[in-house]
Amino acid sequence: MFDPRLLDSSVHLTNLALCQARLQADARWPWIVLIPLRAELREIEDLTHSERTQLTSEIVVSGQAVRAVATALGRPVEKLNVGQLGNVVVQLHVHVLGRRADDPAWPGPVWGFGAPVAYEAQALDLAVESARSVLA
Amino acid sequence: MFDPRLLDSSVHLTNLALCQARLQADARWPWIVLIPLRAELREIEDLTHSERTQLTSEIVVSGQAVRAVATALGRPVEKLNVGQLGNVVVQLHVHVLGRRADDPAWPGPVWGFGAPVAYEAQALDLAVESARSVLA
Repeated sequence: MFDPRLLDSSVHLTNLALCQARLQADARWPWIVLIPLRAELREIEDLTHSERTQLTSEIVVSGQAVRAVATALGRPVEKLNVGQLGNVVVQLHVHVLGRRADDPAWPGPVWGFGAPVAYEAQALDLAVESARSVLA
Repeated sequence: MFDPRLLDSSVHLTNLALCQARLQADARWPWIVLIPLRAELREIEDLTHSERTQLTSEIVVSGQAVRAVATALGRPVEKLNVGQLGNVVVQLHVHVLGRRADDPAWPGPVWGFGAPVAYEAQALDLAVESARSVLA
């Protein structure tokens, strides 16, 4: 149902009403990926009106979860970034992540920037718990 | 009301219910910028629930307008990209643009990529007309 490239680069957090929320496995940014639980979608326009409203709610709560992850890891974020690109993986998915003026790609976009950095095990646990506490 | 950097890089198209829609003055991509007509906003979470739903509708219609611009200019798009970053200009604004596998930044993001390319006058007129015909 999900493109394996989305699964390989992220960790399951929880299923929301519309999307599965996953933590991007990249310690450089607190970063959640939302993937609607209908696999044939490519664009936001492919969602029904009520699904679009639900997506926006899930983007907002994911932003709150991103802030919680960032704070738990001691690097609170200054700005949220939201992106729906799909140039590489066309299955509809939305990125919600936090930025700081001292992050490696600032002020440019994170997509395609350098190589992911793995979380240390303890930090990953903390990130997952912090995100789930907001999303669940 | 609008950050001058948003105005300088784009051309007014029309005012929708929530946002002013502007054509990004960059001939490399068919690209609309949506700026809510309330200047104190920074993040999607700063919108009310009904404004968030309206924003999503305006993103979808802007995607249709982007496709119309692209087709009018003879370069139909294969994929839409939507982004809300605000790392440089913090006033809330949303980018909706069209991508092709032969565009200069493909498959990476467009933000911060190279320098804008000015439209030729006739192409700009055509782009503005095409976008307005969908948005109006």
